[in-house]
Amino acid sequence: MADITAIAKQFVEFYYKTFSGDRSSLLALYRDHSMLTWEGTPIQGAKSILEKLVNLPFGKVQHRITSLDAQPSSPSVASLLVSVNGNLVVDDSENAIPFSQVFQLIPDGGSYYVFNDIFRLNYG
Amino acid sequence: MADITAIAKQFVEFYYKTFSGDRSSLLALYRDHSMLTWEGTPIQGAKSILEKLVNLPFGKVQHRITSLDAQPSSPSVASLLVSVNGNLVVDDSENAIPFSQVFQLIPDGGSYYVFNDIFRLNYG
Repeated sequence: MADITAIAKQFVEFYYKTFSGDRSSLLALYRDHSMLTWEGTPIQGAKSILEKLVNLPFGKVQHRITSLDAQPSSPSVASLLVSVNGNLVVDDSENAIPFSQVFQLIPDGGSYYVFNDIFRLNYG
Repeated sequence: MADITAIAKQFVEFYYKTFSGDRSSLLALYRDHSMLTWEGTPIQGAKSILEKLVNLPFGKVQHRITSLDAQPSSPSVASLLVSVNGNLVVDDSENAIPFSQVFQLIPDGGSYYVFNDIFRLNYG
């Protein structure tokens, strides 16, 4: 599963870099049937998801990844399930908050889009 | 997504109850093409997965769930993506260890089996 992990790592690094640098560009990674569950709140569709992400109450964000695991999510399609754990550093706070995030990525014209996205902060 | 969350909750509660009570009975929940990534180690197939789970170096285990999120994982099949966060209490230790686990559940004759399973302990 070396290739799958490499693809997942590349995607996640790009996703978090975009999240930190220009959150509105994440729109291109979602589709109308994409789903985000953010801290328990379900949101559907690229535009609604972007509205949620862009309006989050923090400016500068850094995701420090501690683990990344990937598996094929279908026996027939080259889709990927990706599980990420790490620490979120918000607005240069000294307190990193553990997070976990799950993506299902669907192949689309040489690239991937996000069909499933589940995000949780772990307050412990 | 109320129904999906209810199904996911029911499955996860059954899974962790079986994990605590009779780990070998988890065999029925996996298939030959099922995948487990346990702390970064990839394992494929129901028998290999069970061998891993049964031989884990702890006796008594309790999963205390802090969050459970579920989404449909396919536009066509009634499969489910389930993300669980919580604390693992091993052998009555006073130290609960945060964990995150992701399942993809595939419908199969009125029930579900586990196609994807990714487990991580977060040492923080």
